[in-house]
Amino acid sequence: MTQLLKARNGVITPEMETILESEPISRDALLKGVGDGTIVVLANPAHVKMGGVPLAIGKGTRIKVNANLGTSQDDYRMAQEKAKLEASLKAKADTVMDLSTGGDLNAIRRTLINDCPVPFGTVPIYQAEADIAARKGSFLDLVAEDLLSVIENQARDGVDFMTIHAGIRLRGVEHLRSSGRLTGVVSRGGGLLASWMLHHRRENPLFERFDDVLDICRSHDVTISLGDALRPGSLHDATDTLQVDELNTLGDLVLRCRDSGVQSMVEGPGHVPLDQIETNVILQKRLCHGAPFYVLGPLVTDIAAGWDHITGAIGGALAGWIGVDYLCAVTPAEHLALPSPEEVYAGVMAFRVAAHAADVARRFPGAMERDHAMSRARFNLDWDRQIELAMDPHTMKEVRQERKSETRACTMCGPYCPMDLVKNLSDDEGSQESSD
Amino acid sequence: MTQLLKARNGVITPEMETILESEPISRDALLKGVGDGTIVVLANPAHVKMGGVPLAIGKGTRIKVNANLGTSQDDYRMAQEKAKLEASLKAKADTVMDLSTGGDLNAIRRTLINDCPVPFGTVPIYQAEADIAARKGSFLDLVAEDLLSVIENQARDGVDFMTIHAGIRLRGVEHLRSSGRLTGVVSRGGGLLASWMLHHRRENPLFERFDDVLDICRSHDVTISLGDALRPGSLHDATDTLQVDELNTLGDLVLRCRDSGVQSMVEGPGHVPLDQIETNVILQKRLCHGAPFYVLGPLVTDIAAGWDHITGAIGGALAGWIGVDYLCAVTPAEHLALPSPEEVYAGVMAFRVAAHAADVARRFPGAMERDHAMSRARFNLDWDRQIELAMDPHTMKEVRQERKSETRACTMCGPYCPMDLVKNLSDDEGSQESSD
Repeated sequence: MTQLLKARNGVITPEMETILESEPISRDALLKGVGDGTIVVLANPAHVKMGGVPLAIGKGTRIKVNANLGTSQDDYRMAQEKAKLEASLKAKADTVMDLSTGGDLNAIRRTLINDCPVPFGTVPIYQAEADIAARKGSFLDLVAEDLLSVIENQARDGVDFMTIHAGIRLRGVEHLRSSGRLTGVVSRGGGLLASWMLHHRRENPLFERFDDVLDICRSHDVTISLGDALRPGSLHDATDTLQVDELNTLGDLVLRCRDSGVQSMVEGPGHVPLDQIETNVILQKRLCHGAPFYVLGPLVTDIAAGWDHITGAIGGALAGWIGVDYLCAVTPAEHLALPSPEEVYAGVMAFRVAAHAADVARRFPGAMERDHAMSRARFNLDWDRQIELAMDPHTMKEVRQERKSETRACTMCGPYCPMDLVKNLSDDEGSQESSD
Repeated sequence: MTQLLKARNGVITPEMETILESEPISRDALLKGVGDGTIVVLANPAHVKMGGVPLAIGKGTRIKVNANLGTSQDDYRMAQEKAKLEASLKAKADTVMDLSTGGDLNAIRRTLINDCPVPFGTVPIYQAEADIAARKGSFLDLVAEDLLSVIENQARDGVDFMTIHAGIRLRGVEHLRSSGRLTGVVSRGGGLLASWMLHHRRENPLFERFDDVLDICRSHDVTISLGDALRPGSLHDATDTLQVDELNTLGDLVLRCRDSGVQSMVEGPGHVPLDQIETNVILQKRLCHGAPFYVLGPLVTDIAAGWDHITGAIGGALAGWIGVDYLCAVTPAEHLALPSPEEVYAGVMAFRVAAHAADVARRFPGAMERDHAMSRARFNLDWDRQIELAMDPHTMKEVRQERKSETRACTMCGPYCPMDLVKNLSDDEGSQESSD
């Protein structure tokens, strides 16, 4: 039985007990949220058995951040992937996804998941495509059974959540030409499916065989992350008819997941101008019946390659404040190359900033208290305590050690640290800490 | 006569003509804006004579980004400052400010301004303080004439705009203790003034002698940037009584500037949670009579030292969208150390992302067209054109050259570039560029 079915039966599972230790949510709210599908618990029993720690995403829980790992056909070094996993965990990513498309995909996935205490996600169509291309020369020869067998195989390996692009329909693909889109399809899974569908003039096999997908995911309690194959890849294409039509289908699929006892969340854009983010969040929450929303960025401009972790953090912070539950980190290498471990680290940190800023803005219980504790330590020039409280203690410690002031302040102000100046001169008359 | 006085007389100056070449604003709107003080033209004639290029900030113009340079008493290498100026210009900062407090301040400023085509700003109290401390041993011996003489000296050298902390009043400083603030005073100029005021139990000399400041600034057409000495240095202190009381005073000073024909803008926070940014912008625009608003960040969390360029870019993007005119870049070294040239570069890039995202969101004329052109080049995998259009062509070119795919796409997707897949397979049936 999945966590969802157990919650519906009123059972608090050991996985939920673990979650209650770190989330400021009541037992009742967690039970209700998991039962009605507004919260998912990522916890494939096979991964939990290997040491995987369950995680909740959705209503009433902290906003989470995912790190993407994975090889490509240009670069498939196992050591590099292990280094990226290490970087993700050091940066405190809440989950990781293995998006590998090059090298021995089973070996890479099994190695990574074994070293990964946080929930682990995949996009099974990548492996299905690579297997078929290797065996038959072209991924166009793919049949639905190939997809189902990869999904089952990965589920057995302990994958906690999978992106399933079941929402892209033949009607959408056929509408691409007349849609006026600037960047067509930018989802990799979506691109593969759209090509297959156009070539065969056939409906999406993941949509047609969705009941079979549900059977596998229910058996292994894999959470389905409903992929947005037609997500906008440019500001120009944001919130267009293709995106919204697919979102509508994803909403239907959420209900089918819930009916069959499978946990589900919904993936979202992509490239979206700042002023359309609120609309996107409200629309998803409405059309997808309150399912947890998992966005990639959103990226608020198209022109900042090299800095897209920042582009995405801006969009992610606003999205999180409005109601997005889960942010997929974008790295500085986005639009340019497969990221390095350092770039994965920077991407996760940028999105942790965004997620925390959003949790602060929506007054998530306990979020701003950490800022207050930090500011108190800062005012006291207590550097050890600041490092303890920092979102990134590693970087803070490093910079501080490298460039220490001759004073007790920092090298920016040195003897003219304003906090110290006023504090020292005023004694009983100047600033004083508040007591909260 | 200042640009403001000339505009009131209906005169389009050569400096305004220069601005009209790059800003999509009508002659009438520029003339009206400069005349009523909702636009400032940074153009000290002495700097223009040295090759300085005039810049407009405010209503109906593109959002601008400032880079902070400057030494401290811990680190005052001239070569490092020159490198920071170079980094700022390479990153396309719209203005730079020299905040030096260590070394030969006249020599540093004169060297930098001479190499600086963009408007150049300072905070004169830093030099006044350093001079007095060197001559008399303590900056507490400072008298108003010392400040006025530094302001005049710097104005003669061609400084285009100066932060003048005239809004911090004795009543505010005396209220610090009972205000419940967590981080007291965090503005360096504010800290110096507050200490002086507490020590002498006297009113702020910059407030008392504001008419003399105005006389100097009018003579040299120096734009006054009214500093917010009591800006919040923590989320806890944001939008508190001290900040709002000072903002009210700054609004009065804006009117005094306008009455005397001096251009002015208003500086703002600081540390502000995402959900209080809109209030801050609306309040400033209202209380300060539409004067251009120049903010530092705002930083939307206190706990992200090492990543505060991102913290600030998130706040800056939202602030710009709502109506802020000018963003002061924060670097990754904020709260830790004086920034390196690389950190200055990263700070400016982060804030250029924020400024552009905001211009896009408020539909500033021409802003989103560049995103569309970039996305068209991206869809065509035209890398040269992408580099031409990139906000940061240097970084883009570097990453692209270092890590080139064996395909015409990039190493993230290699042969499975979704844009290429769908485009190639569909021919007349698939995605096509729109014509806008």
